[in-house]
Amino acid sequence: MIPRSKRSPVPLSACSLARSIDVIGDRWSLLVLRAALYGVRRFADFQSELDMPRTVLSARLKRLVEAGLLTRQLYRDPGKRSRAEYVLTDMGAELRPALIALTQWGDKWLNAGEAPIQFASRKSGGRVRAGFVDDAGRPVADAELKVVLRR
Amino acid sequence: MIPRSKRSPVPLSACSLARSIDVIGDRWSLLVLRAALYGVRRFADFQSELDMPRTVLSARLKRLVEAGLLTRQLYRDPGKRSRAEYVLTDMGAELRPALIALTQWGDKWLNAGEAPIQFASRKSGGRVRAGFVDDAGRPVADAELKVVLRR
Repeated sequence: MIPRSKRSPVPLSACSLARSIDVIGDRWSLLVLRAALYGVRRFADFQSELDMPRTVLSARLKRLVEAGLLTRQLYRDPGKRSRAEYVLTDMGAELRPALIALTQWGDKWLNAGEAPIQFASRKSGGRVRAGFVDDAGRPVADAELKVVLRR
Repeated sequence: MIPRSKRSPVPLSACSLARSIDVIGDRWSLLVLRAALYGVRRFADFQSELDMPRTVLSARLKRLVEAGLLTRQLYRDPGKRSRAEYVLTDMGAELRPALIALTQWGDKWLNAGEAPIQFASRKSGGRVRAGFVDDAGRPVADAELKVVLRR
């Protein structure tokens, strides 16, 4: 008898997704990262963008700095005391494909296909969506994807 | 004086990311979806893959069915009583780009660049990564991306 369902063909414990979720996978952290990707840097600006309790925001920023996704830099406006700015590291900035993929999925499935924020290419002007690309630079359809286990 | 930091140029409240996070953004739900994307369907198989308390798994499966990401189907092996299988809907399956992007980010930044599970194209055989594609089917580099607000 062929089972109609089976265990995963890949050892899921080896998959890095759980690690990623442990670093970024709570709602507040993701919203802080989203704001940072759109250019927000100052504590007060995160707070007014996100409408998040001050203590929660402070804890999340600290955690994201410790995890290496943000760096804390001091700046000083003329005549004022110095303040902290939180800037994405390369590690943090490289979450862009994942967060844009999630945003576009939400536009399609949870917002009746409306995309209030869209993305375009500076070069071609064409509208951009999250997808897959092979190492020759060719776009790859979802259905074309296969899983390869590294031995 | 030009501010060194500013609020986001886009109204973040309009962005669908928060909606997506509310549907899928807890650790357990994401791990259930990951297993489903790799072909796991039965309760007992989810349980042995995920090492998750039975009640938590049950609640997450129920929630993902209610949210429209999984469907619950009955099957019956010969001579046995019927059981439920949980199968991804189109809505659930279309999370693939986001979850693979997160997995590859984790490989690079949290697993020393080791990718235990890789993805390839059935057509070209080339290794596949999550990225961006424009509507002419051209791959788009991260740095080429610009945000467009829909008015």
